[in-house]
Amino acid sequence: MSKYVIGVDYGTDSVRSIIADASNGKEIASDVFYYPRWAAGKFCNPLQNQFRQHPLDYIEGLAVTVKNALARSPAGVAGQVVAISVDTTGSTPVAVDKSGTPLSMLPEFEDNPNAMFVLWKDHTATREADEINTLARSWGGTDYTKYEGGVYSSEWFWAKVLHVLRADDQVRKAAYSWVEHCDWIPALLTGETNPLTLKRSRCAAGHKAMWHPDFKGLPPEEFLVKLDPLLKGLRERLFTETFTCDVKVGNLSAEWSKKLGLPETVAIGAGAFDAHLGAIGGEIKPYYLSKVMGTSTCDMLIVPMEESGNKLVKGICGQVDGSIIPGMMGLEAGQSAFGDIYAWFRDLLLWPVEELLSQSSLVDQATKDKLVLEIADQIIPELSAKAEKIPIGESGIVALDWMNGRRTPDANQLLKGAIFGLNLGSDAPRIFRALVEATAFGAKKIVDRFVSEGVRIDGIVALGGVAKKSPFVMQVVADVLNMPILVARSEQACALGTAMAAATVAGLYPTVLDAQKAMGNGYEMEYKPIKENADVYSRLYDLYSESGAFVEHFSKKL
Amino acid sequence: MSKYVIGVDYGTDSVRSIIADASNGKEIASDVFYYPRWAAGKFCNPLQNQFRQHPLDYIEGLAVTVKNALARSPAGVAGQVVAISVDTTGSTPVAVDKSGTPLSMLPEFEDNPNAMFVLWKDHTATREADEINTLARSWGGTDYTKYEGGVYSSEWFWAKVLHVLRADDQVRKAAYSWVEHCDWIPALLTGETNPLTLKRSRCAAGHKAMWHPDFKGLPPEEFLVKLDPLLKGLRERLFTETFTCDVKVGNLSAEWSKKLGLPETVAIGAGAFDAHLGAIGGEIKPYYLSKVMGTSTCDMLIVPMEESGNKLVKGICGQVDGSIIPGMMGLEAGQSAFGDIYAWFRDLLLWPVEELLSQSSLVDQATKDKLVLEIADQIIPELSAKAEKIPIGESGIVALDWMNGRRTPDANQLLKGAIFGLNLGSDAPRIFRALVEATAFGAKKIVDRFVSEGVRIDGIVALGGVAKKSPFVMQVVADVLNMPILVARSEQACALGTAMAAATVAGLYPTVLDAQKAMGNGYEMEYKPIKENADVYSRLYDLYSESGAFVEHFSKKL
Repeated sequence: MSKYVIGVDYGTDSVRSIIADASNGKEIASDVFYYPRWAAGKFCNPLQNQFRQHPLDYIEGLAVTVKNALARSPAGVAGQVVAISVDTTGSTPVAVDKSGTPLSMLPEFEDNPNAMFVLWKDHTATREADEINTLARSWGGTDYTKYEGGVYSSEWFWAKVLHVLRADDQVRKAAYSWVEHCDWIPALLTGETNPLTLKRSRCAAGHKAMWHPDFKGLPPEEFLVKLDPLLKGLRERLFTETFTCDVKVGNLSAEWSKKLGLPETVAIGAGAFDAHLGAIGGEIKPYYLSKVMGTSTCDMLIVPMEESGNKLVKGICGQVDGSIIPGMMGLEAGQSAFGDIYAWFRDLLLWPVEELLSQSSLVDQATKDKLVLEIADQIIPELSAKAEKIPIGESGIVALDWMNGRRTPDANQLLKGAIFGLNLGSDAPRIFRALVEATAFGAKKIVDRFVSEGVRIDGIVALGGVAKKSPFVMQVVADVLNMPILVARSEQACALGTAMAAATVAGLYPTVLDAQKAMGNGYEMEYKPIKENADVYSRLYDLYSESGAFVEHFSKKL
Repeated sequence: MSKYVIGVDYGTDSVRSIIADASNGKEIASDVFYYPRWAAGKFCNPLQNQFRQHPLDYIEGLAVTVKNALARSPAGVAGQVVAISVDTTGSTPVAVDKSGTPLSMLPEFEDNPNAMFVLWKDHTATREADEINTLARSWGGTDYTKYEGGVYSSEWFWAKVLHVLRADDQVRKAAYSWVEHCDWIPALLTGETNPLTLKRSRCAAGHKAMWHPDFKGLPPEEFLVKLDPLLKGLRERLFTETFTCDVKVGNLSAEWSKKLGLPETVAIGAGAFDAHLGAIGGEIKPYYLSKVMGTSTCDMLIVPMEESGNKLVKGICGQVDGSIIPGMMGLEAGQSAFGDIYAWFRDLLLWPVEELLSQSSLVDQATKDKLVLEIADQIIPELSAKAEKIPIGESGIVALDWMNGRRTPDANQLLKGAIFGLNLGSDAPRIFRALVEATAFGAKKIVDRFVSEGVRIDGIVALGGVAKKSPFVMQVVADVLNMPILVARSEQACALGTAMAAATVAGLYPTVLDAQKAMGNGYEMEYKPIKENADVYSRLYDLYSESGAFVEHFSKKL
């Protein structure tokens, strides 16, 4: 009798659930749900880089997608599901009460952005990140940022927690503890949401919350209180132990068993970040940088523990034993915006269509709506087709990809994007090309940092929407990196990796690597660098670096 | 019996002729002609900043507009026309043969851009401008750039002449002499086009060709040959004398009398640049900077000769006795792109409409064409309305207005534009606001330079399309300059100023200032600076200056 596993993959805009055959990874059915409150722009303020998500978007999406995927499966599949694992974005923490309920689920906080999940790309906590960095380097004790690249980011747990505690008296008074999105969903499914005992993810804790075995857990109370007395007592209401994605946290609760139509015997796995499980589903291998290329990038590397030694890599998001593959050192880096930059430019160009077409009396409303969608869909493909034909370096335009700050190397979310070399002939395809090159240069900065810190990189494994759908972008990246890029075949690497984790949690495979071997589906193609292009890009990369050095100094004044 | 004068105003895209009552300046009729070859983009390469115009665009436009304006006038007006004066863009020189015929009028050169008029905004001669500057400062003799601000520009006569002579063997062999557009049209109308004797404009010669009484005309042969032996002998086929706009150069030729339906008694005035005659028509007054604000700006100042002394102003386009008002020192500065920057951004945003709407099958072709025009027309007004509501400094975006290089202070046409401080919330109105602010900061750099060189500025007189049609831009400029701006009432200041010059040429007024008094129509409004805005802009101006210093160094690498 076949056994099935469910992988639930929470992305920035939507959640996807897949049902996979645990023996070979074959997808039986899937469903996607777009968060309605998020799609309506609620609780966000993009100009202030404030991005918050309501837990109901997550809960509704979980129920709808699992049920729809089951409905699309052959009869009897539901009874043969053995495990569910979950991945989410992160660091995406939320304040919870004593029962582990996010405050925004309570009537008095239902519209308060500070009671919502603080999404990975929220940058409201830049000041708090600064303070953490300053204190960590000056307080005379251990530098607790050292396993996170030596630079703490406003995208991470402690900066966000402290920012909200400072910004909102009501939330501060009501917040008993804090939970990452990837820890809360498994807890919800098991019904055991007590924040003092729910099982926390190793990758969230290690990469974003300064948790490390050397520190015996989170940074000590002394450090936290020195950072801000507001943090007093919080540490003991958090956690000391963490769990890799092959660990079972419990079984499906009666409530959710009923809600989803699944047996209570279903095992629930410890959660992890989307990119980390995506790396597993996307055929990560040692010394190949696994790049999840979507709105942002998450760049992961695994190094066998015996080869990783105790060496620290400066300026990345961190290195954590078992954060990706249990038993291997997981290193993480990434770019705060990648596809988001192309989307920003698309939306910029769409302004006249959205603002002015709607006022026209030349066409009816239904046609206008269709036109807007039609044009919006075509902008990036058409820009890519045009940009591809422009000789490299011809336009003289150089851009910086810091429209959402810089995650690595050397996190600095206060940085901003820039475009240089504009003249009256700088048209949309030329600017788009420069933006694509800028994102590729940002990728090269990360590779260069690993190499200069003594970690070799043999090649790239790419996954995510950009890797699958943008051959122009991928060739630019291959040329800029002057490195081959393998593209993973899986269309839904995160969901598949989560299914692999679930199969391991269910005891069907002894390790995640065994699950990957049985359930993975290899690479679909390879982008090879073109030498002449690489040579020209090498000169442009120097200009990117030079302008970056100026903007790094200049951005803080803007 | 009334007397009438005709002012012919050649702009960048079109030529306009007006017929005015010489007693009071009242416009009787007018007509506009858009250059057809130019509109089709012929002979140009915007990416290389190559902009050329065919003489037939000018000749056809002259005949059509004068005849149409006469046709719209009451019966009998044609017989009472006493003078025609002409203004044109500049420096816009062309290579001519011995008869003074532009080479592009000859069959063998009719499609050769190097045989066309080299339009003011053509920047193909940046290398030649560099060489002129280097030589002028190092050759041990007089610095012949000193009356042109000490920096020669690629937009000017000698750089353009030398560039074409180097670039094109055929043109070099056939070029007997060179003539400015503003000198050639009056010569054409009189039928006396011999380049050795045709009367040359003081303003073109003094501001763009290093002509000065102190040098006894143009720079000496020794200097020119040292610059490039290709220039050998050209000087003596040019000119030593120059003429202000109140001077008659001849009478209408029999040929053009017949062509236009005007008497041969019509006097033809010496030509001048559009901005200079626009300043006269636009109520220029001493110590008020007269800004013609259109695609670019031309900023003019008149100072009574007795007060101007022999002081040199560094980094402007020059100071020439009588270049604007005969008998007063005329000083000129300007920005290479102003409205052109807004138009560039409009065209950038229009890309999806132009490229993608055209491919849609949702609407028919006629509706598409109308939609494109409708949306194109509304972009800048709508952006202005939205941008006006954004608090100053809120977006963190700072731009540099060098998309077409920098004319003054300190000409450098190799500079390029830049946009700093972009994030994912940087939308079209916010970027537009930053571009408007950048053009205003560029204007402030010019005012600051006059003041720091000891020339006081009491206020601004604005004319041109931007001054009349863009209250948002004008208020930003007033706030940034922290100075009141008077807007001239005349809708067609250049054409009106040209008519004033024609009336003086015809002997109806003793001086141009008398013609201005009788025919002018004053100011229509005043923009007053708002103190709180000025304070915020003062901080942003520092950021503009700081980023400019970096880009000045960086642009040459792009």
